[in-house]
Amino acid sequence: MNLKNDLILRAARGEKTERTPVWLMRQAGRILPEYRKVREQLKDFVTFVKTPELAAEVTVQPVDILGVDAAIIFSDILVIPEAMGLPYKMLEAKGPWFEKTVKTEKDVEQLRIANGDDLSYVTDAIKLAKKELNGRVPLIGFSGAPWTLFAYMIEGSGSKTFSQAKKMLYTNPKLSHALLQKITDSTINYLKAQIAAGADLIQIFDSWAGILSPEQYNEFSLRYISQICDAITLVPKIVFAKDAYFARKAMSKIKCDVIGLDWTMDIAESRTLIGLNKTLQGNADPCLLYADYDVIKRETEKMLRAFGPSRYIANLGHGLYPDTEKDKVKFFVDTVKEFSTEVR
Amino acid sequence: MNLKNDLILRAARGEKTERTPVWLMRQAGRILPEYRKVREQLKDFVTFVKTPELAAEVTVQPVDILGVDAAIIFSDILVIPEAMGLPYKMLEAKGPWFEKTVKTEKDVEQLRIANGDDLSYVTDAIKLAKKELNGRVPLIGFSGAPWTLFAYMIEGSGSKTFSQAKKMLYTNPKLSHALLQKITDSTINYLKAQIAAGADLIQIFDSWAGILSPEQYNEFSLRYISQICDAITLVPKIVFAKDAYFARKAMSKIKCDVIGLDWTMDIAESRTLIGLNKTLQGNADPCLLYADYDVIKRETEKMLRAFGPSRYIANLGHGLYPDTEKDKVKFFVDTVKEFSTEVR
Repeated sequence: MNLKNDLILRAARGEKTERTPVWLMRQAGRILPEYRKVREQLKDFVTFVKTPELAAEVTVQPVDILGVDAAIIFSDILVIPEAMGLPYKMLEAKGPWFEKTVKTEKDVEQLRIANGDDLSYVTDAIKLAKKELNGRVPLIGFSGAPWTLFAYMIEGSGSKTFSQAKKMLYTNPKLSHALLQKITDSTINYLKAQIAAGADLIQIFDSWAGILSPEQYNEFSLRYISQICDAITLVPKIVFAKDAYFARKAMSKIKCDVIGLDWTMDIAESRTLIGLNKTLQGNADPCLLYADYDVIKRETEKMLRAFGPSRYIANLGHGLYPDTEKDKVKFFVDTVKEFSTEVR
Repeated sequence: MNLKNDLILRAARGEKTERTPVWLMRQAGRILPEYRKVREQLKDFVTFVKTPELAAEVTVQPVDILGVDAAIIFSDILVIPEAMGLPYKMLEAKGPWFEKTVKTEKDVEQLRIANGDDLSYVTDAIKLAKKELNGRVPLIGFSGAPWTLFAYMIEGSGSKTFSQAKKMLYTNPKLSHALLQKITDSTINYLKAQIAAGADLIQIFDSWAGILSPEQYNEFSLRYISQICDAITLVPKIVFAKDAYFARKAMSKIKCDVIGLDWTMDIAESRTLIGLNKTLQGNADPCLLYADYDVIKRETEKMLRAFGPSRYIANLGHGLYPDTEKDKVKFFVDTVKEFSTEVR
C-alpha cells in the first residue's frame, strides 16, 4: 500500500523532504489519557503487550491525537528474552523482573533462538495497526539491542549499574559472546518477521549503551548491532544507543540509515563525528516539555536550526516522561512542523 | 605536621612523583569486613555519619588495610542539605529520602546558609582521623557539587531521571539559581571548615552531572563549581563530574587542580581536551575488580600506560561496588604501585 505520508522514510534514506518529520519515543503511552483508558481494561503489562487488538489500538492513538509522522508498534524490548525462555513480570514502580536469569554456559545452551512464530502476538499487532493506519503514516518496528537484552537477562531486573551483567563480560567473555550471538540471531528473526508483517522501518534501542567503556561497547554491543544491520536489508534502520557518545564515530560505519542522539550530545559535533551519510534523529530533553510554551518553542526551533533541513528526523533524546502534558507534546510536534515548513 | 607520604598532593600540583599515587572512591565502605563490623554498632546511616569517633575509625581503615595513598573522610554529600534545613533518612535498599523538598521561592528563603559550626560532627571526625593518621597520608575532604545537592533537594530521593529537579531548571530558573547560590555559599563555608580542621585536599562530587545538556551544565552546575574553586585557595581541588564528558574542555578553565574521569572517557582524548595544566584522576571501571587477577593486572597496566607518569592519580571511574572482594581491591592498589615504580 502506498503511504500518504512517507516523510520519515525519505528523511531516513537521505532524500529531500518538504518539512522535517517528527515522532516521539514513548508517544504511545501514559502521557495520553486515551492510552490510560485502554490500559485500565487490562492492567497486567505483559498480558497487555500480548493482546494484539489493544497493542494495535494504542499504537495508532498518537497518530490521531498528536499528528506524528510515524506510529511505533506498542510492545516491549523484553519480549525477546521471554521468547528465548526467560519469562518476566513488570512490577509496579519497580520495573521488569525475571524469575530465572542466565548464570552458566548450560543456561545459555538451554535458551531457544526465537523466531517470528514465537512472537506472533507482535506481528499480529503490526498487521492490525497497519490496517487501522490505512497508509496514513509509516509504522516503526523495533527491538532492544543485544547488549541491553543481555543486561536484563543476566541482572534479572533494572539496575543503576548493571554490575552483574558487566561482571559477566569481565569474568566469562566466552559465555557473554555465546549469549549475545543467540540474542542477535533471535533479534534478526524477530525484526524480519516484523517487516514481513508490515513494519516500514525499524529502530534498535540500546538503552544501557552508556555504562560500557568504549572498548567494551565495540566488542559486546556494536559488533552485534552491526550484524543485525547487515542482515536487515529491506527497510531503513535507526540505531539509538543512549549515552554512547563515545561510539558516534564507530556507528557511522555500520549499515544503519539513522543514528539517534540524546540531549547531552552536541548537534554540530555529532554531525562532524558521524559525517553526512547518515540521518540524525533526536534530541530534545524530555524535560523541555515541562517548560512554558514559549520556552518549548524557542528551544525546539534552536534544535531544528542546529540539525538543519536535511538528513534529520525530529524526536526527543529519550522516551517521553509519563507526567508530561499531552498539549505540550502536541505543541512540540506542531512547532517542528510549522518551523521546518517555514524555513524550507 | 609534615606528611610522610605526600604523593597525591604533589601529583595534584603537577610535581614529579616517584610513582603514581592511588586511592579509591568508596574505599571506606562495605567492601571492608572491618567497616561492616563498625557499622553493626550503629545501623542508622545518618546517625553513623554524625558520630565522629566511628566516622574517623572507618576513614583510616583503608590506609591500614589497602595501603592507599590518601584517606577520605567518611561522610555523606547530603549533610549540606540537612544543615540547610532539609533533613533526610537513608532507607534500606532505596537510598536517601527527604520528608520535605524545595517547591517554592519561599522554601528557598527559609533555608539557612550552612556554616562550619552546623557540621561540627564532620570537622570533629576530620580532627580525629588526622590524629589517627599521624601524618602517614593526606586526608581528603569533600562535598557534593551544588547541582547534585539541588537535584536531591528538589526530587526528594534518588531517581533515574531526576525529572522533577530538571523540571525546576526549565520552569523556574530564578528559583533554581537562588537555591544553587545558597548551596554554593554553604558548601564554601563547609569546605573551608574541613580545611581548617585538617583536610589536605578536597574533592567535589557531581554525581548527577551527566543528565544535563551541555548548555544547562554550564549554567546550572559548572558556574557554581567554579565559584567554589575560586573561593578555596589553600589546598588542591579535585572535581569529579560523573558522565559529564561534554564538559571536559570547559572544566579545564576552572580553578581546580585535578579532574576526575569515568571509564567511558577515553584517556588520550580527555588529555587533549583538558590540556597539560590539570592532573587527571581515574578511571578504571569498578566492575574490572570482579575479573580474575591477570585481567585486573593487564587492564590496570594498560590504564597506567595511557595516562602516563605525570599529572596523574590512579583511581576508579566511580565508587567501589559493595560486593567487590577486598583482596582484588588491594591487588589493584599494589599493581598501580608496582607498575608505576618500575616504569619510572
